[in-house]
This record gives sequence, structure tokens and C-alpha cells, in this order.
Amino acid sequence: MDNTAVLLIDCPDRKGLVATVSGLLYRYGANILHADQHQDREAGLFFMRVEWTLDDFDLDAFQAEFEAIAVELRMHWRLDVSSRLPPVAVFVSKYEHCLVDLLHRHGIGELRCSIPLIVSNHPDARPLAEYYGIPFHHVPVTSDNRVEAEQKQLALVAEHKIELVVLARYMQVLSTAFVAQFPARIINVHHSFLPAFTGGKPYHAAFARGVKLIGATSHYVTDVLDEGPIIEQDVTRISHRSQVEDLVEKGRDLERLVLSRAVRWHLESRILAYENKTVIFD
Amino acid sequence: MDNTAVLLIDCPDRKGLVATVSGLLYRYGANILHADQHQDREAGLFFMRVEWTLDDFDLDAFQAEFEAIAVELRMHWRLDVSSRLPPVAVFVSKYEHCLVDLLHRHGIGELRCSIPLIVSNHPDARPLAEYYGIPFHHVPVTSDNRVEAEQKQLALVAEHKIELVVLARYMQVLSTAFVAQFPARIINVHHSFLPAFTGGKPYHAAFARGVKLIGATSHYVTDVLDEGPIIEQDVTRISHRSQVEDLVEKGRDLERLVLSRAVRWHLESRILAYENKTVIFD
Amino acid sequence: MDNTAVLLIDCPDRKGLVATVSGLLYRYGANILHADQHQDREAGLFFMRVEWTLDDFDLDAFQAEFEAIAVELRMHWRLDVSSRLPPVAVFVSKYEHCLVDLLHRHGIGELRCSIPLIVSNHPDARPLAEYYGIPFHHVPVTSDNRVEAEQKQLALVAEHKIELVVLARYMQVLSTAFVAQFPARIINVHHSFLPAFTGGKPYHAAFARGVKLIGATSHYVTDVLDEGPIIEQDVTRISHRSQVEDLVEKGRDLERLVLSRAVRWHLESRILAYENKTVIFD
Amino acid sequence: MDNTAVLLIDCPDRKGLVATVSGLLYRYGANILHADQHQDREAGLFFMRVEWTLDDFDLDAFQAEFEAIAVELRMHWRLDVSSRLPPVAVFVSKYEHCLVDLLHRHGIGELRCSIPLIVSNHPDARPLAEYYGIPFHHVPVTSDNRVEAEQKQLALVAEHKIELVVLARYMQVLSTAFVAQFPARIINVHHSFLPAFTGGKPYHAAFARGVKLIGATSHYVTDVLDEGPIIEQDVTRISHRSQVEDLVEKGRDLERLVLSRAVRWHLESRILAYENKTVIFD
Repeated sequence: MDNTAVLLIDCPDRKGLVATVSGLLYRYGANILHADQHQDREAGLFFMRVEWTLDDFDLDAFQAEFEAIAVELRMHWRLDVSSRLPPVAVFVSKYEHCLVDLLHRHGIGELRCSIPLIVSNHPDARPLAEYYGIPFHHVPVTSDNRVEAEQKQLALVAEHKIELVVLARYMQVLSTAFVAQFPARIINVHHSFLPAFTGGKPYHAAFARGVKLIGATSHYVTDVLDEGPIIEQDVTRISHRSQVEDLVEKGRDLERLVLSRAVRWHLESRILAYENKTVIFD
Repeated sequence: MDNTAVLLIDCPDRKGLVATVSGLLYRYGANILHADQHQDREAGLFFMRVEWTLDDFDLDAFQAEFEAIAVELRMHWRLDVSSRLPPVAVFVSKYEHCLVDLLHRHGIGELRCSIPLIVSNHPDARPLAEYYGIPFHHVPVTSDNRVEAEQKQLALVAEHKIELVVLARYMQVLSTAFVAQFPARIINVHHSFLPAFTGGKPYHAAFARGVKLIGATSHYVTDVLDEGPIIEQDVTRISHRSQVEDLVEKGRDLERLVLSRAVRWHLESRILAYENKTVIFD
Repeated sequence: MDNTAVLLIDCPDRKGLVATVSGLLYRYGANILHADQHQDREAGLFFMRVEWTLDDFDLDAFQAEFEAIAVELRMHWRLDVSSRLPPVAVFVSKYEHCLVDLLHRHGIGELRCSIPLIVSNHPDARPLAEYYGIPFHHVPVTSDNRVEAEQKQLALVAEHKIELVVLARYMQVLSTAFVAQFPARIINVHHSFLPAFTGGKPYHAAFARGVKLIGATSHYVTDVLDEGPIIEQDVTRISHRSQVEDLVEKGRDLERLVLSRAVRWHLESRILAYENKTVIFD
Repeated sequence: MDNTAVLLIDCPDRKGLVATVSGLLYRYGANILHADQHQDREAGLFFMRVEWTLDDFDLDAFQAEFEAIAVELRMHWRLDVSSRLPPVAVFVSKYEHCLVDLLHRHGIGELRCSIPLIVSNHPDARPLAEYYGIPFHHVPVTSDNRVEAEQKQLALVAEHKIELVVLARYMQVLSTAFVAQFPARIINVHHSFLPAFTGGKPYHAAFARGVKLIGATSHYVTDVLDEGPIIEQDVTRISHRSQVEDLVEKGRDLERLVLSRAVRWHLESRILAYENKTVIFD
């Protein structure tokens, strides 16, 4: 697999943005693999993702020149190289299905990151973490120790320079302070098709409402529960024969799918979040 | 196509219900085509749909004997024969896509009913109604004439002994009085995936929320807007590239699908509504 | 709605193509709405679709300068303006569902084209054509008159300078000669999920095989039956309860969807066909 | 969870079958949870699945009386109790994703069976088997030792009285002799949407054909490769941007889904295979 660079940009829209960026890449002899753009005309915003191979490419010189242009065009931007594996922390509670799925995908190379630690408020997932050789930290959370527990978690995360926190059916609510430290860098899976059935027991609520499809949603966490920018959703059909436990079971498949897709797209720098929505360059 | 009878039952659950009903049918020599049952253990309810051919079947005698049993077992029940075409009224406003779809399906025999009239608060659909040879009634609705307009509608519906009212993107809200006259006999299509985005402009709301799937829902109308028992739902994927008009366009396909399925299932006596949910024997 | 231009390009891949095209557009002051690229590294091919508004844009001057570049870069290209409505001919046999769907969409502005004629080997669709005010040509086809019938069709198509032929469940096989005149300009819908169940009676074949999903496929017609580049496919679930007529009925919904999507993408210059496959810039 | 009994029947169709079976169950005081029937009118066959709780139910007496009736009505039938866990063997080659998925589901109680052994022609899956505490048997297969290898496998399977063999991306072809010993008791997952792309490298074939959806299929193994009765299929959308490795990756998700659904339905006695098709009472 190539060693590639990915440039992810968003800025106020204007003429010539594609020409400017691709022109600069051309001058540096970039061999472009993928280029995607999107304009939100109403919001007056421009988004772009470009991926090119790094053979014979002077990345430092390019970046220096690009930085100046970016300031001028008021761009937010990120430049990632595929050979670098960002450190990711996974938080889990009692249900392991999402964790099992993520660890397997990571093990076969689908998720390009390192996973320095797994954090849980229960001890149940320790054997699974050990099977994959990943340090496991049991940090119990009670109504009395929320603040200390979170401080422990933040210390662990800081220690490993974590760049992405994945809540893999982690059922404790993160504080506003925690969330504020990781804007667009905490991915959660909610077991409903948002915006329907926010909060607790969504499968029970879906069952009561008599919906014919249930869903799961992965999203960036913001300080309002289940309201952050949606990254991915998927649904499956249910019928009158489905009891709540059937919804829970079918829902597990959806949760794993939407969470793993979100994590992968994030690691491949395919997601741009704005105005509580996401642009996904897939 | 066979001439068949369909018996649709719901009652308090107890042992022996399947045996009793199928036993009775057997004694009358019924050639059963389809038999489906469902129990809601929590609610203690039993549901059954049986369909059999009417060749050499003494329906009157069967019905007389069944009625007695039904009283004893506290059954709600319906006995329909496929040769009878229930009269259906279709209400439409400006958007004709659902109406076009229903009329085509009816024309090729997919919907086993008669359509004695089409009612609209706009004149636009008259040519379409005339093409299909169906009487068209333009009943304008303003904030001043709601009561009179609805009385006209009810009179038309009563005159033709309408058994099912289909709101094919009919955008006026029916009064509680109207709705009360047709329990589980008014089918509406709402252009969102309920319970998300109830009320007006659901595509705009979906766009703002940044969902990745949009949907449409067909349901029986109750006196709470968009809250009645859901009959069918379907979704389609959208992306950041979709503008509101794209959602509206994709949504049209879903609206036609979920509405036509609901109408067909109702006409085939496949739907039982209870506790604001539906059992669909498909 | 804007008056826009769409440039659709495919050429041998090399560095600088995005920069060159977007650079040229920038020099002409183009206000780009959408830009999409794709590279097939194995085949060494580059594909691009750019759409921009035509306000204050000197299209003739741009085209003249672009033509020179295109020759140099060995580009195949097409430049369309949204205000121009290409003439489209629709062929149909006995089943009208696809035609009904296309004519309705065309009527509400979803398909940006003109439809100067409808051709059929049966007379059944004449009333529908007349309802939409489109000239209807009944050209019967028998085993004896195939050549003459096709000559009549070709004459009609030539007379109206038809640019796209849509086979909307037109069941006669076009000759190699006919097909050769419209490379990537005849769209057909085949009622199966290709490459499964080519040829006749695909629903019967699907039923016999016991598949759990049936599908429909729209594709460009080539001289090998059902083998041309696939444009769109979709599926729906069936169960053991489905008889062949149920497959046919469910299949109609899929056929309408995949055919209308293909026609619309073609009219919006979103499709590039190569190596018997298609790139769809949606 | 209840201890239940499941009766699965198929026989020549005739009047009174539902009445007979449900009548017998009623006489024994069965508390029926689920009852499903299906008739194939063309084939003249009847299928039924009934599930009831075993509290206060004289299963032996019921079975004795039922056996006599079954002989008379020429029924094939099976009577399973949910408390009994059938022994299942899982075969795997190099790709573990299906195995990981099955073992996780088994571990959380979704698959009601015991798994006494895992067999593989590679050693790679040993750690995974050990993590789940399941005996692992590495039986290498070469062109020279096919017969001996299969004899080892059959011996292991016989030793543990295996009732179902699951080929979880097991890539060796089983001999006709092996298959003959397990009619409708070997479930395989093929990584295509059958009947398209049978045999080897289906993702490469799908890529070449330019399909817009790829699929996976689980089926009972017969002596013709990839031709046995289909149990479950599912698809996912791909685009021109997908390379073969992307198809392989997306396909893994489908393979896990269709295989696990098939295994679960089999273990819950929901599948009846006939005429190379399946009836699934889900």
C-alpha cells in the first residue's frame, strides 16, 4: 500500500480554490490518487479532500508554501500521512460487540491507527483486551466519583497523546469539560436512528412506537447528548414479530457497522464537520 | 385469480385459538391458501389471518357458526371476499406523484378496490382524474371555510359509502370529527421517517439535522398529527451533496412506495392495528 | 434554476489534469458548482465532471481554448448546457409502468429533455402518450418484418434528431446495426439483477433458483444482449411466500427506479462508460 | 428464557393439516408461542413450524401420538427442544472474520448450540479458538492428501456427533462423499450474490462486470459447488471508486451477516429445504 498524504480543507467559498490547490500540487509534481470537492452554496463554504502519493514529493516544502496560501484564503486544514498511525482510545462498558468488531478490524489492518489503551467502567472486557495485547484500564464510575473517574480517564488519554476517543457502547455520559477537549474527536454510537429515540432505552421506545425499521447512528460527541454531527446511520427492517430483545440483537449488527465506518472514515481524513453536520468524502 | 375469503381476527390470547378456527374451517371443507398468526404475550393478544378459496364453500353457514364462537372468545373480526371491491376515496393536494402511482396500480389490477372519487383542495389533478375516468371534486379549503369544506367532503364520502380514505399527499389537516368517523380507515403518507420530523417541512428539518438517510411513513390517521399506527416505512441514502430539493425528489419515490404498500395491504386485509402499532400479515 | 454548463472528460491519466482544467475555468471566471474526478490507476484513465454557472461566462471562447488542450491531452469530452433539452425517444411494449413513471417525472421537470415521440410494437400505450401530448407511433414487429420495422424506427429517430433512446420495457431485441448507431445512447432496463438471469423470463428463473433478493438493472445497450455497461441496479427482498407474480409486481417498482435514475444521470451528463463499466458522478 | 419445543413439518398438502396439528397440540394443553405455515400450491407441499412452551407439557406422549399421525400424512418432521444444544463444528481457512463473528455471537448466547471443535487447514486461527476455549484441529490440505485430510475431518466430526458443519470461509471443496453425509446440514458462505459469480475470485469478477451492488450468500452445501439451496443473501452498494480490495472489505460485513443469520435460523429450526430452495420461518 502506498504511503500517501491527505489534505483536508474547509474555507469560505470563492472562485479558483480548486485551481489554486491542484495547481500548487501540480507544481510539486504530486501524483494525485483522489480529489473530491463540495460547496455549500447557502453557507458559502468550500470543502476539499486531496490524496496523493508521497514518492518523490517534498512534503515539507509543499506544506510551507501551502500554509501561506491557507492563511490568505482563511482555510482550516489538516495534512495527514498514511504511514502515521494516530493513537486511538476505545471506551467500553458491558456490551463488547462493538469492541470485538473494532479490535478485529484493527488487527487485520482495516483501521490505520494504534490503540494504546482500552478504558472501561466494568472489568468484563479485560480478557478481550489482553487477547489483543492492549492495555486495559478499569475505571469504575459511580454517582459519587464521576469527577475523579473522569480525571483518571483524561490523564490516561493525555499520557498516550490520544487523538481520537471511540465510545464503543460506553454508557456513561462524558462531562462538558471532557467533550470540550476533543472537538470532532470523540465518536459515539447511539443505538437508534437519530434524531428519533434519543437518550436511554431507545429500543424500548422504538418498540413502543411500532416503527418498521430500527437504526443506529455514529456521531461526533458534543455537549448535548445524542445531538452531535451525524457521521453514519443504517437501518434494518423489523416486524410485529420482533420483541425488544430482537431489536437489541438486530441493532447490534447496525451499531458495529455504523461505528466502524465512522472510525475508519475519520482515520482516513474523510470527514469534515460543520454546522452540526458532516461532509463525508468516501 | 381465485375468489377467496379472508378472515382477520384479534382477541384475548388463550390456548386453542388456532385449533378452534382451523378446525371450524376444516369442517366446512376450506381449502386454506394462507394462514398466519401472531401473539403479543405481554399484551395478552392473539391475531390471525386466514385466506381460503370459496369454491364449494358455504360462506353464510360458516359465518353464522363463526359469529357465535367469536362472541364467546371475545373476538374482533372481519370477513372479506376478494371479489368485492371496497370503495376508496383518494384525497390529493398539489403534488400528484402518489396519486399517479396509485391510479396506475389500480388500473393494472394491483389495488383491488373501486375508486369512485378523487377529492382535492386544488384543481390541478382534474386532468389526471379524467384520464382514468374517475369523478374529480375540487373542494377548496381556506382558513375561513374549513368546516364547510369538510362537510362537503364527508357528504361525498358518505354518498359513495367510502370504506377507506387515502391521503395521497393531501396537505390539509382533517378535523378530529372527520378522523373519528374512520378509525383505522384513513391512510396518510408523511414525508419523513417517523417519529422523526413530524409536522411541516420535514425535508428541511432532515437537511438541517444532517441525517444520512431520509424516509417516508404511511400510517393510519388518528387525532394526533403524524402519531397514528405506522403501517410501512422506507428509507434512502443521502449525502452531503444532497440539497433540500434533492431530498424532496428522492423522497417522492419513498412516499409512493410506502403509501401504495399500505393501501394494498389494507385492501388485502393484512393489517391489524392495536396499541398504536400494526401487525402486518404479508 | 441556474443555467449551467457541464464538462465531461475522460483521457489517459497524467499529472496536472485537475490543475489544467480547473485553472482554465478559473481564468474564464467560472463559478464552479460541482467538480468530481476519478482515476482508474490500473487502466491508466482519468475522468472528470465539472459543472459551473453560465452567468457572465464566455462559453464560446472557453470552448475554443479547451478544444486545443483536449487534443493535446487526448481527451474525449462533452460540453452540455442545462438549458438545452436533448430529444429523447421512448420505446415501450405492453407494460406501461416504466413509461408512466418516466412521463410523470418528465412532466414535473425531473428529466431535462424533450420527448418528441414514443414508439411501440403495440397500440396499448397510445392513450397515455396522448394524455401527455406526445406523438405515438405504433410500429408492429413480427418475425417477418423485423428489418422494415426497424427501418421505420430508425427513420423516426433520425427525423427527430434523437440523442437518447430509452427502452422502457421494450421487449423486442434491437439489431446490431441499430445499436451501432447509438453507442452509449440506448438505455435499457432488464428485469433482473445482472449478471444473474439474463435473457427471457428472469423472474421465473429467480423464483426457481430460490434467491432471497430480486433486482432490476439499467444499462447501455451493446450488441450482446444484457451485457452492456451497467448504470444502476437495485434489489428488494422476497421470501418463500412470494410467487412468480409477486416477483413481477415487486420487480416493477425496481424497474421504474433503476431506469429513471439512469435516464436522469445520463441527461445530467453524469455517466461515463468505459471497459463495459460506468463511472457515475452523482 | 422459556424452554420450548419446535415442531418442523413438511408433507404433501391436503385439507385439515393446520387443524390436525394445532388440534393435537391443544389437546395436550400446549401454550403456543409461534405458529407459521406455508403452502407451495404448485408443488403440492405444506410446511409448518410450531413453537410452544414445555411447562406442564407431556412431550413424550405428544410425540408418540404425533408420530402415528405423521406416518399417515406422510410427513417429514423434526421435534427439537430449545434446552438441547446441538453440537456444531466450524471449519475455517485463513480469513477469520466470519469465525470471530460466530464465536462472539455464540459467547453472548445468540447461537444456541455447543461448539466442540474448530477445524482449519491453516494454523492461524488457533489463538482465537483458544481464547474461546474451543479445541482447535489443524488439518492441512494439499493436492496429495485430500482423501486422508477429509477422513481426519470426518472422524473428528463423528467423534463429537456433530449435527451441523459451518464453513466459515473455509476455502477447500468438500468431497461428494462428505457432503452426502450431511444433507441440509452443512452451511457455507459464498462471497457473491448467487447465482452470479460462482466459483473462485467472485469479487474480481464483480469488479470486472461493473455491478453497482455486491453481495454474499449463505446456503446448504450440495454436491454441486455454490448451487445448493440459498438460505440468506444481502447486498451493499459500491461505486466506480471501489477497487477490488474495497469490495473484499465491504464483502466481509455481508459474509458475516448472511452466515450468522443462516446458522441461527438453522439452530432455531426455522429452515426447510426443498427443490433446491428454502422456506424460512423467521
